[in-house]
Formats: sequence, C-alpha cells, structure tokens
Amino acid sequence: MRRSPLQDGWELSPNDPTGPRFRIEDIYPCVDGGRYPIKRVAGESVEIWADIFREGHDVLAANVIWREEKANDWHREPMRLHSNDRWHGRFAPPTPGWYLFAIEAWTDQYATWRKEFLLKQEAGQDVALTAREGYELIIELMPYEREPRLLVEAAAEKFTETGDPAHLLDDLLAAAIGTSELRPDLTRSHVVPLLAERERARAGAWYEMVPRSQGRVPGQHGTFKDCIARVPEIADLGFDVLYLPPIHPIGHTNRKGKNNSLKVAPGDVGSFYAIGDETGGHDAIHPELGTLDDFRRLVEVCKQHNMEIALDFAVQCSPDHPWLKQHPEWFKTRPDGTFKFAENPPKKYEDIVNPDFTCPDRIALWEALRDVILFWCAQSVRIFRVDNPHTKPLPFWEWMIREVRDRHPDTIFLSEAFTRPKVMRALAKLGFSQSYSYFTWRTTKAEIEEYLTEITSHPARDFFRPNLFVTTPDILPVQLQTGETWMFKSRAALAAMLSSNYGIYNGFELIEHEPLPGREEYLDSEKYEIRTRDWNRPGNIKAYLKQLNTIRRQNPALLQTNDLRFLQVDNGNVTGFLKESIEHDNAVAVAISFAGGPQEFWLHFGADEIGRSGNRKGVRVIENLVTGERHMLEWGGIRLRIDPNDDPALFFRCTA
Amino acid sequence: MRRSPLQDGWELSPNDPTGPRFRIEDIYPCVDGGRYPIKRVAGESVEIWADIFREGHDVLAANVIWREEKANDWHREPMRLHSNDRWHGRFAPPTPGWYLFAIEAWTDQYATWRKEFLLKQEAGQDVALTAREGYELIIELMPYEREPRLLVEAAAEKFTETGDPAHLLDDLLAAAIGTSELRPDLTRSHVVPLLAERERARAGAWYEMVPRSQGRVPGQHGTFKDCIARVPEIADLGFDVLYLPPIHPIGHTNRKGKNNSLKVAPGDVGSFYAIGDETGGHDAIHPELGTLDDFRRLVEVCKQHNMEIALDFAVQCSPDHPWLKQHPEWFKTRPDGTFKFAENPPKKYEDIVNPDFTCPDRIALWEALRDVILFWCAQSVRIFRVDNPHTKPLPFWEWMIREVRDRHPDTIFLSEAFTRPKVMRALAKLGFSQSYSYFTWRTTKAEIEEYLTEITSHPARDFFRPNLFVTTPDILPVQLQTGETWMFKSRAALAAMLSSNYGIYNGFELIEHEPLPGREEYLDSEKYEIRTRDWNRPGNIKAYLKQLNTIRRQNPALLQTNDLRFLQVDNGNVTGFLKESIEHDNAVAVAISFAGGPQEFWLHFGADEIGRSGNRKGVRVIENLVTGERHMLEWGGIRLRIDPNDDPALFFRCTA
Repeated sequence: MRRSPLQDGWELSPNDPTGPRFRIEDIYPCVDGGRYPIKRVAGESVEIWADIFREGHDVLAANVIWREEKANDWHREPMRLHSNDRWHGRFAPPTPGWYLFAIEAWTDQYATWRKEFLLKQEAGQDVALTAREGYELIIELMPYEREPRLLVEAAAEKFTETGDPAHLLDDLLAAAIGTSELRPDLTRSHVVPLLAERERARAGAWYEMVPRSQGRVPGQHGTFKDCIARVPEIADLGFDVLYLPPIHPIGHTNRKGKNNSLKVAPGDVGSFYAIGDETGGHDAIHPELGTLDDFRRLVEVCKQHNMEIALDFAVQCSPDHPWLKQHPEWFKTRPDGTFKFAENPPKKYEDIVNPDFTCPDRIALWEALRDVILFWCAQSVRIFRVDNPHTKPLPFWEWMIREVRDRHPDTIFLSEAFTRPKVMRALAKLGFSQSYSYFTWRTTKAEIEEYLTEITSHPARDFFRPNLFVTTPDILPVQLQTGETWMFKSRAALAAMLSSNYGIYNGFELIEHEPLPGREEYLDSEKYEIRTRDWNRPGNIKAYLKQLNTIRRQNPALLQTNDLRFLQVDNGNVTGFLKESIEHDNAVAVAISFAGGPQEFWLHFGADEIGRSGNRKGVRVIENLVTGERHMLEWGGIRLRIDPNDDPALFFRCTA
Repeated sequence: MRRSPLQDGWELSPNDPTGPRFRIEDIYPCVDGGRYPIKRVAGESVEIWADIFREGHDVLAANVIWREEKANDWHREPMRLHSNDRWHGRFAPPTPGWYLFAIEAWTDQYATWRKEFLLKQEAGQDVALTAREGYELIIELMPYEREPRLLVEAAAEKFTETGDPAHLLDDLLAAAIGTSELRPDLTRSHVVPLLAERERARAGAWYEMVPRSQGRVPGQHGTFKDCIARVPEIADLGFDVLYLPPIHPIGHTNRKGKNNSLKVAPGDVGSFYAIGDETGGHDAIHPELGTLDDFRRLVEVCKQHNMEIALDFAVQCSPDHPWLKQHPEWFKTRPDGTFKFAENPPKKYEDIVNPDFTCPDRIALWEALRDVILFWCAQSVRIFRVDNPHTKPLPFWEWMIREVRDRHPDTIFLSEAFTRPKVMRALAKLGFSQSYSYFTWRTTKAEIEEYLTEITSHPARDFFRPNLFVTTPDILPVQLQTGETWMFKSRAALAAMLSSNYGIYNGFELIEHEPLPGREEYLDSEKYEIRTRDWNRPGNIKAYLKQLNTIRRQNPALLQTNDLRFLQVDNGNVTGFLKESIEHDNAVAVAISFAGGPQEFWLHFGADEIGRSGNRKGVRVIENLVTGERHMLEWGGIRLRIDPNDDPALFFRCTA
C-alpha cells in the first residue's frame, strides 16, 4: 500500500497496512499542503480547523499538538467537534520563531461504551452484560497517573461490590479515564509549519527617508546627524518605522547624472542603488553620511522615540564594489573579459553589476550576502526592505531569511517585488513578512475593493501581508501628478485604513508631484541628486498624517487585515468598510472618497455583525473619531456627506 | 533549510540549498496534495495545469512527465504557457491502471539569448559581443543526438566563417538546440498519482435484480437459470450492468422473518445479507440459486448481451458462517463467551456478526476478505458493489482495492455509503470508482441543482463519480410512495440524464410503491421473502426506461458528468441543463419537471457556448430527440411545454 509520508500518521505505523485508522483532512490554516509556513503573531491565538473522522459511529477525541520547531516535546490542546466532522482547536505560540503543529485523533472507547450503554438502558434492554463490558474496559484503560487511577479503581471496586452500573457512568470517572494513555488507534496528521513574528510584522506606519536629503543647507549632503534631528518630528507624526534607502558608498564608474542621465556632471552624487566603492560595499557606510557610530546613534534615537530603523537590502554592486576584485568568480564576464553589467534588454544599467547567484562558488556568495544582513543585525537593525527580490533566485531568499531568523527571530523582511502576482505570492510564502502590492495602481472603488478583498482573504491572508505605499522614490503614480491635496489625503487614508502596514516616501507630505513628462517617475528625483526641503512648507499635510496615525494607534481594528469587510455604499465615488478586532472589542468603519467634489451617500451595514462569538450583533451606534459626534443608525445605515477639500475620509468607532 | 520531500524536485538536489530554482505550484488535477489518485478513463486525454515560474525574465520550458506506476521510464509531453505563469499540457494513459505524473521545468537558455539579442538589435545597439555569447552558448548546449548536433555544428561554423549573427537565429537551429540535454536548473514537481479506469467506470445504466425473485411460479425460489432467462429483456431495455445482491448461503440462526420480523415462520428464506451457513460463506453460492457453473453461465450470457454482472460485497457473517468456527479470533466475544452480534444501539441485528477489523490477527482477516473478491474475479466478475463500506476501516478499503486492481486493473468498485459527506468523499478518494449519493433525497429543483453542481464540480469531480439510484431494496423514497407514473418517470429521467451512472432496483419499472407505514422501506420487501412478478404487467414504464437508455447511448454528452451546466428556467417546477462532450462534438439539453401538472417555461441558454476550443458559440438550433422536431432559438432561449402525464422530460440535441 502506497502512503504519502506527509499524511495520516505514517510516523506511527509506517509498515502496517491496517493503520492508520483516522483521516485528518483539510487542515486550516495550511499553505500549499505544509510546504510553506502559515504566518501569525507571537502571543496571539491560532485557530485550527480540520476534518477528523474514521469509520462507524464511535465517539472520537482529538488534540492540536504543537511545539517550537527545535523543541522535542509537543504541547497538547483539546479539539472540539464543530459540525459535519469538522473540529476546532487553538494554541498561541508564545515568542517569535518557527513552530510546528499537527493533529492527533483517537477513539474515546469509554465514551463510546457509555453512549451505547445509556441508549440500551433507555430502550429498556438487558444491560447486565454491557455493564460487565464497561467494567472490563475501565480496567483495560486504567490510567498510569496516581490520582485518576485511584478514582477508576474505586469505581471498579464499587461496581464489583454492588453490580450497579451507575458506578461506571460517573462524570468524574469519565474525566479520569480521559487521561488514559492507552490510545491504540491514535493517528497523527501531517505537520504544518508556522512562522510566529512580532507585532511590528502585522502593523506599522513606515516613513521612507533619503538621508542625504535631510540636511538644512540647500545642495549640501545630509548626514545621519541631520536624520537624527528629524526623528522627533517623524515620531510625533505617529510613524513606527523609519526606512532608509541604501546608506552605502556609491560607485564612481558609469555613475548616473541627474534625472538618470548617462552624462555625469562634477559634483553629481550618483544613485544610492549603485552600491560600493574602494572604501567598502554592503557593510560600509557612505562617508558623507557619517560613521558607523553615527548610524548606531540614529538607531538608538529612533528607539528612544518608539521607532525602528528599516534598512534597504539591494544586492547589486557598482563596478567599484570590493567584491569584484575580491571575488571576480561571483560575477559573469563577457567574451571580451569585461564584467556583464545589469540589463533588461534593451534597457541597460551600466552603473551596476549583478552577482551571479548560480555561479559555481554560489554558496560562498550566498553566505556573504547573508552576512551583510547579519552585520546590520549586529547594529541592532531588525527590519529589512529588500530591493527587487523577484530577480534573484527564490531558494536564495528562503535560505537566507531562515538563516537570519534562526539567529534573530525578531527580524522582519519586506519584499519590494513589483512583479507578476504568482511571484509576489511565492516571495511571501517563502518567508517575507510583508510585501509591496499593486495598491499604487488601484485607483477606483471597484479596483480597491476587489484587490484588497483578494489579498486579505483566503488563501493569501495566511502568508501575504500587504504594505501599502502611496509613493516610492521610483513611483509617482498618475493620480498624484496633479498635486491635488484631497487626492494625497485620500490615498494616504486608503493606505493607512485598509492596511495595517502602510508607508509614505518623504516629500509626499509636501504634496511633491512633478513627474518626468509622461512617466510615473519624479522629476529631479533624489535618487540622483540631493534635494533639500522645508519640511514645514505651507500646504503640507503633516497634521492629516498625524491624525491618521493617531486613529490607527487608538483602534486595534485598524492594525490587522484579517477582518476587513466592504460595506454597501450607493455612490460609486466612495468606498466604505468595516474592520474589527474581536480580541480588543474594537470595530471601526471608514468611508473614503475617490473624487474631489462633495459626495453624499448611504453607508449601509447590511447583515454585518460585530462582537464576541455568541454575542454578535449589528452595528447600532457610530461615533466620529475626529469630531466625537455620535449617530444612531436607522434602517441599518446612515446618510453621510464627505467634502474632500476638508477631509476625503470619515472615521467611526462602531458599537452594537 | 527544511524542504518537504513532496515538493520542488528535491529528488534532483536534496542537499544543495541553492536549488531547486523553479516553483511548480497549484498543479491541477491533484487530490489532497497527491495523497489520493485523480480518476480518469484510459485512452482519454488528461488536461494538466500548473503555475510554473522562477525569478527574472528568462524564457522557460516545461514538460508533463508520466508513466505507469510500475514502469521505470517517464514519457514526456511539452507544456505551453497559457497566461499569468499558468502552463498547460496533456497526456493520455493508454490502459486501465495506476499512473504517476509530474512536471519538469527548466530555463531555455538559447531562447532567452535569442530574445535578448533581437531586442538589442531592434534598438540599434552594438550586438557583436552578444552574438559571440550566442555562439558560445550553442557550443555549450551542443546536443548529443547526431542530427541536431550536425545542424548546430553547421550553424556555428557558418557564424565563425562569416560573423553573421543571422546564422545563430535560425528556427531550425532553435529546434535542434531544443533537444539539448543540458538543463542545469531542471526542477521536478511533486508526483501526482492517477487511477485510469475503463469506460464502464464513467458511464453505465444499472439494473438491480434479486435472483430469488426471478422465478415464474409464485412463491418458488428463483434460480440463476431464471435470471438468464431475463437477460435478453433487460439488455433490450438498454441496461449495461446487472447487479445482484448477495448470492451466498443464508444463515439459519436468528434468521429474520417477513418484513424484518424477529419471528421466523417455516419456509422463510431470510435476509440475503446474513451471509454464510454450514455449506459455505462469501465464496459459496446459495444452493437454491444453482451451482457455480450456473453462475458462470449467467456471466457469459450477460457478456453475449453486452452486459456485465456486478456482485455485492457485504462483509457481515451470519452466526452460521464457516469463519466463526475456523477463525473465532476474527470476531469479538462478550464476557459470557458469546459472539457479539451487530448492533447500532438501541438497534440490534441478531442475524449477523461483524468481523473485527482491528483484531490482532487482522492481516489474515483482511487477506481472506480480499481473496473473496479475487475468487469472484476468477469467475470473470469485474464489478463489485460494496455494502456499507463506511462501517469498516478506511485503510482496509484502500489496501483491498489496490490489491485487487494490481491483479485486475479493470475492476470497478461502487461504494454504498449512505453516510456523512466527508466519509463518502473519503471512500471515493481512496479508490472506489463510483459512489451512491444523496440523490434519492434531493427532490426539489433547488436541491437537485445545488447537489449535482457540488458533486460534479471541483474538487469532487476529480475523485467522486455519482451513481444515482432511484430506489434500492432498502429505500423507497417518500416521493415515490404515491405511485404516480409521472413521478417515477421524472426520477428516472433525472438520474439517467444528470448522471452518466444511474440505477434502478427491480420493481421500479412496475411502479412498486407500497411502503411500510411511515417508513422509507418497501412493504413485504424481498429482502426477507420471495416475490414473483409479472415483468410485463400493465402500467409498467419499461418503454420509457428503454427510451432513456437509448438517448444516453446515442449521446456521449450524457455519458459523463464533467460538463454539466444548469440553464435558466423561469419555472420553479422545472430544471433545465446542458451537457456536452466536446471530444464527440455532442451537446444535449434536457428539461425535467418536478410537478405533475402541465408546465410552461422559457429554457434560456444565456451565455453558455458549445463547440471546440477556439470555435465555441451559443446554441442556435435544438432538435427534440424523441419527436425529431427542430427549433431555432430566438433571444437565446425557447418557450416549451411539458405534460408530465405524457413525459415529464424533454430531450434535445443542440447545435451552434
């Protein structure tokens, strides 16, 4: 008999064709049959479901068993039959790390006997022989543990003395017998891996800051000290993560000029994505930014302000990167002996060279790349945004992320993969905590509702966590190029409210919106030059961003994406949705406009209910989180008005 | 790095963390991650789909590889990219048996080079060095096979002579290089098992016949000779399978009287499900039916009439079964030393004893049960209906069915499991060819449409084949108890048209409908007595059943359940559906009434299309398969009328 090693308790009886007796099927959650871990947050309950059955009508029992991957002993939590052979249980992984869980099922022989005895007794049948069978069964199932054993022995003795079957039917006896270790048909399911991360993996507001543009003197190269000076302001806006694009030395060879020009002018600073020069590579700091000590101070100051640094991991090297001399075997050469620079024909990137991940010495290369991350971990960095992971082998990421997390389980990885959907999902499955998304290009109500439903529903929700960026140094989306303040606010509100992880790129708060003509790129992008700004310039929307972040922090419902329900809104320019954190007894409804003029609409809660299981009810009162106004709902909904010039969004706390 | 043994080509590189390069995901068809086989019919194409991708933008290639499970060599069929990283391929297992398939993917290095070369050339870039790289690549990829090798060598030579890259871009060269065995990143998916059965597994009309009731003299025990006499008539009605309930000796001890009475009268014949007496058990024949030779003749006569015998495999034993003496260790005893008879408390079945499938000597028991099937296989029986498989361990069936099919791959098993849905599905997954269903209790339009959609759609369609019985010796459903002819016809038409496998139990054609009061069981059931009938009694619906079977045989669309689409019908008493066999260029629409009075309705084909891929069109003409009338459709539909007293169903062949 063929049997898959992943199924049906093969560990317990690999050679006996007559076992295992149970089927344990359709385990939820589980990604690709257990090939990839499900993602959860340490300390939070994991709800487990499975179909559990065997032949016949006996009474069954089941446990969830779970452990840290490297531990030896399983913990056990009881499961309960829900309906239609579907069982439910739960456990909470206490700390960040890799876990395993599985399900064990067995026949509850005593409960089966008890059920049948009572049915026969009720039907007036002669039960003397059945009672005797019950007696023999409890002797057979005698627990090892002292306390229950004494209880079972006492019951057996009383039955022997009196012949009264009542002594075999006691609830306390049932509990005692339940501890019996004799479970001859115990069947174990395949094992499901789980990655528990810390809360920041689930929720955070990101501020992307280009360090060299943080100086105060126009044209002068900013430093980490300048960055430190800005930390209190950014922390006050309510951001959690301060994300820096590459901070490493920048190559000279084929350096790009302003606006990605092939002609470089004296004083041009080059792209920070052309990493490495004679002073160092991925573990060095661009000298004009400061020293490693300065960087460590920045990390420390962020910590004091309850923020964290996220670094950028961009694998490519400038032609001046030390690795090209130290490890030429890591790079492809052409028939003329030159290194092959990066290209995506017909596009060329002459200022960077990509390591060859499949070269014969690839294991050394992979280890060197891993060690870059470990170096920054040693500087207390625990969040990494990874540049273009979809152009490097998927097995590299799976290996590298595990290597790092084995040493630092609290490390968070964000995948910047603007690529095909299957590849984006594969990166999430193999271990990235979070992922960039297509949000940037989803601009209508229908697009937003369809896309957010897709990425927050089964199966994606168990491995994919979106991080919605409104802009990036690479992307100034068309809808923001007119520079309308309401649109910037609307996009920020969509990102911050729909997703628990969202981000802006510096300049967004200043409504920067000048594109390269016909492109989705910034004019005079600071990818190629220093831009010095007045961060308090009139017209900025910092107060609005602060309000969004404040509302988020006060409402746990907004700090998750597992419970997002779109509501009925009778206006095609407005989306409405409800989010709830049952654990925190918090439900929030939001309405956001996609259009500039005033919008009137019905926000209707339909059959949606909130509250704890067993006590769920429809929403009856909503309280405006900005004005404090309270509204009773009539007919399950409410007539509302948005004036986007004031605020394109409305925020309500909901009560049942 | 952890890696599941079922995934990602671990066979090719179990120890190298840098491989495998490809992800091959979401393979369709595949049941429970490959734990169970998908079911198909030998000689028919299996359509394979999978997500196949790796990092970057190189040109990829993929094959379906497949083989008989016991064969050593894989066959290979090319796959093509459909869209969104989803690939498609197909293969056809030639004969019934167990097969495996998997997917292999690799980088087409030459096609990648060629694509990039052409892009650069088009953009006017200097391509001399790129051409040289192409030359080096075709040398590296030089095929071993003589013919393509000569072609590649010639191209390389011409390029060396002339320096003209055109010699490296030839389509013939591309085909030659395509045969290169050098595929360094070849990745193999997990393996998917497939069970190929013969056509009878997919489609057949079953006639269930109680042999002892086939005599002509009232009260006299029928024989196999009487059965043989009826074969021409049943074959003429268009049935494919003649199914006999147990034909073995019947026990005496605690024999049941008429109507399942505990009091047995002299001459009572007992239930044929109480198997075994002093003359023999499961491999013996009830003496009053005849001899083994008589039985073999019945098998042979059926064959001459293009029919097959199906036998009943009912595991339970009468208290007189030889096994109780020969192998008392196979049965449970009670504290008083008696054998434990079957019960489902408070119900008792004193005339049968169930073997204990988990007894210490279980392997001998399991083998003995398997040998019963093999014994009947040796008598040329290849179809077995299994009684109550859901009360015996699932691993037994999985093992036994494989043991039998390994010897006789053309064996068909029908599961009589009227039990919980998950258990019914599990029996289908583990190897039963067909399954009884809840059809008997689905009586309204909504119930039928919902249930048939469920069991003929993904995921059930890949492992579950319904066999819709209108009645059985155990079940006279409520809707047939009024004895209305139109209702008998309606149920038969639903069963025969919705499903490719359907069955009736003898007496149905005579509108037998007297129940035990308040029960779904027949009064004076022939489970407990002999019933002699006039099979041509006035009022019989044999002509109608013959018409149904004739329409089925003339229309391959009706002999499958993979393409069943319910149509719009503006009458709650009428269901309409479309079935199509693209392979046979055959599409049939059927409308069936659930009510007795005349019904008028619009049958609307909506957006449904028929025809081969690339040439699919809406239905335009329908031809009545009974009257030959042709109708042009207007507005995509047609107004129709059913008079159930004439015929509760309409049958149409559709053309586009």
